[in-house]
Amino acid sequence: MKRTVTHLADGREIIYFDRRDDADRGAIDERDLPPRPLASELRHDPLTDEWIAIAGHRQTRTFLPPADECPLCPSKPGHLTEVPAAEYDVAVFENRFPSFSANLGDYPQRGGLSEVRPGLGRCEVVCFTADHNASFSSLSPDQVDLVIEAWADRTAELSAMPGVEQVFCFENRGAEIGITLAHPHGQIYAYPYVTPRTRQMLAVAERHRQRTGGDLFAEVLAAEREAGVRVVAANAHWTAFVPAAARWPFEVHFYPHRKAPDLGSLSPAERAAFGPLYTEVLRRLDGLFDVAMPYVAAWHQAPVRQGRDLAYLHLELFSIRRAAGKLKYLAGSESAMGAFVNDVLPEEAARMLRGSHEMISI
Amino acid sequence: MKRTVTHLADGREIIYFDRRDDADRGAIDERDLPPRPLASELRHDPLTDEWIAIAGHRQTRTFLPPADECPLCPSKPGHLTEVPAAEYDVAVFENRFPSFSANLGDYPQRGGLSEVRPGLGRCEVVCFTADHNASFSSLSPDQVDLVIEAWADRTAELSAMPGVEQVFCFENRGAEIGITLAHPHGQIYAYPYVTPRTRQMLAVAERHRQRTGGDLFAEVLAAEREAGVRVVAANAHWTAFVPAAARWPFEVHFYPHRKAPDLGSLSPAERAAFGPLYTEVLRRLDGLFDVAMPYVAAWHQAPVRQGRDLAYLHLELFSIRRAAGKLKYLAGSESAMGAFVNDVLPEEAARMLRGSHEMISI
Repeated sequence: MKRTVTHLADGREIIYFDRRDDADRGAIDERDLPPRPLASELRHDPLTDEWIAIAGHRQTRTFLPPADECPLCPSKPGHLTEVPAAEYDVAVFENRFPSFSANLGDYPQRGGLSEVRPGLGRCEVVCFTADHNASFSSLSPDQVDLVIEAWADRTAELSAMPGVEQVFCFENRGAEIGITLAHPHGQIYAYPYVTPRTRQMLAVAERHRQRTGGDLFAEVLAAEREAGVRVVAANAHWTAFVPAAARWPFEVHFYPHRKAPDLGSLSPAERAAFGPLYTEVLRRLDGLFDVAMPYVAAWHQAPVRQGRDLAYLHLELFSIRRAAGKLKYLAGSESAMGAFVNDVLPEEAARMLRGSHEMISI
Repeated sequence: MKRTVTHLADGREIIYFDRRDDADRGAIDERDLPPRPLASELRHDPLTDEWIAIAGHRQTRTFLPPADECPLCPSKPGHLTEVPAAEYDVAVFENRFPSFSANLGDYPQRGGLSEVRPGLGRCEVVCFTADHNASFSSLSPDQVDLVIEAWADRTAELSAMPGVEQVFCFENRGAEIGITLAHPHGQIYAYPYVTPRTRQMLAVAERHRQRTGGDLFAEVLAAEREAGVRVVAANAHWTAFVPAAARWPFEVHFYPHRKAPDLGSLSPAERAAFGPLYTEVLRRLDGLFDVAMPYVAAWHQAPVRQGRDLAYLHLELFSIRRAAGKLKYLAGSESAMGAFVNDVLPEEAARMLRGSHEMISI
């Protein structure tokens, strides 16, 4: 594997992860790009004690360009993209329209009770493959392994940035979920705070440890493996199951059997075992209704400084499609009150994904 | 005002709120309806300490019927609807496909760590007007007053039901947000638990009170009125402002100046002053991009038993539309991590809604 760091025309970093050690990464980004926008501002919501990023500049970001103008495809003469190379395996670069960055401006207090601070951090785009028409589910095990290597590399590097408290690797897939670029890619957010959901999960795990001495995540995994009815697939290193209290119509959590805080802590064998299992579940998700399913795939890693001994690396995959022609919307109950109503029985979702009563062994 | 309780063909309650005291509510629902579905099951998510309602039966609910089959319009010969009357002012009835109800079944433990209990509670539909083509923004002050009277009535009655811990009156508006019926209507959820967002807000308000002795909600309102820059509209009894740390592109909170726990605690003058202010803001919301805006309007009331002295009645209105042709989607950062990124500056949203630098006085 060869790792090359270089820069785009406006100064943003691009990092190539190449399977071939002799990949030539000398090409220059010849575009004439405008200056990079300033980082958003963070405002503290006094009523919920949460930070909200206000990113006005993102309103102008690229919106569903035609495929022949894809900014994530390799560059070719007459069509210069975000990746100034004729081919690549995995390419990661700083988002042109970031929610968080180190390019700070002024952040005056605005009045009211809300505290304001700079949206320090970093947002990166991860191109999983140069093939515009591929999807994560079509990647080979070797390709997935390289993506994991890129995620782990970025997690370590972003975690070392001043002010970064949590690194979140994720993929949003599908126009139904707001994806503005069809090319197979994910994103990485390096937040300057621990996100609300992670904070909540770690607080619950901490209470559980104080009360029982046990590891809540490990106990949930063990209980799901014991119950079996919601396990979708498993191999020697990973188990994929629909959580008993799933929020989303189709939701699958992927846990390594050995507790690890983050992607960089996976052993080579654990890393290699993930791709075949995960891509099989993704293909089955697409097969449910014979349509490409919109989904979010969210890696839960330990924050940079807090709760590192409590957190348990896992991937939460969920789709908002609840039937062939129907989506799950987050309306009043979910968006306003955080109270989820799920229309699909988790045991039935698991059965549909397995295609039988037996879990898939991979 | 006349209040009449009667029943639909399958036993569900329907409650009419009529401005005229001589309204005749003797009509019978002559439809042949299937039995009512069982209540959903509630599952406890051990990782977040939240309850999720699993409501498999809702998959079959009515989905965007043509206008001439609207189930919320008054009944007429040959078209019998959910409202067995030739006209009505405000009609409230139990949802045919409820997330929560008192029609309980068996709720076996399913294995795994998730605790299961019945989805006891109640879900109601509130028809704001018999006019299919109206919207909340087009209601007269008298009509809004009657809707508030219905909300207050239902809140009191549902709060007295065994097991109900919180009553949530809300309106989801627009197909973009998942609305399956176009007729102007809202919903009421009577939850058997305090919702996650309310629980969080009350915990934050409690910490604030312990630390400072102050009322956090009242201080936020006072600070917004003092700052002024995000105030959209105000009158003697209410102030409408964009919160400093708004999560949504267009978000307006409506606070009564006098602290009250719930809608039933509003004085007649406070109730009368709400409609003109609120409908003006709704019309301005629709005027932003000259399209009917999808929105959620969520009444935050005190829970039935917890935190009644901490809670401060207010309405949170928000839209997912961020530009004429663009929606805000809850993707990875928001849905998976609860970390919101808002692309519209709250001060700019307030200015756009006001149409000037001066707040609207109503």
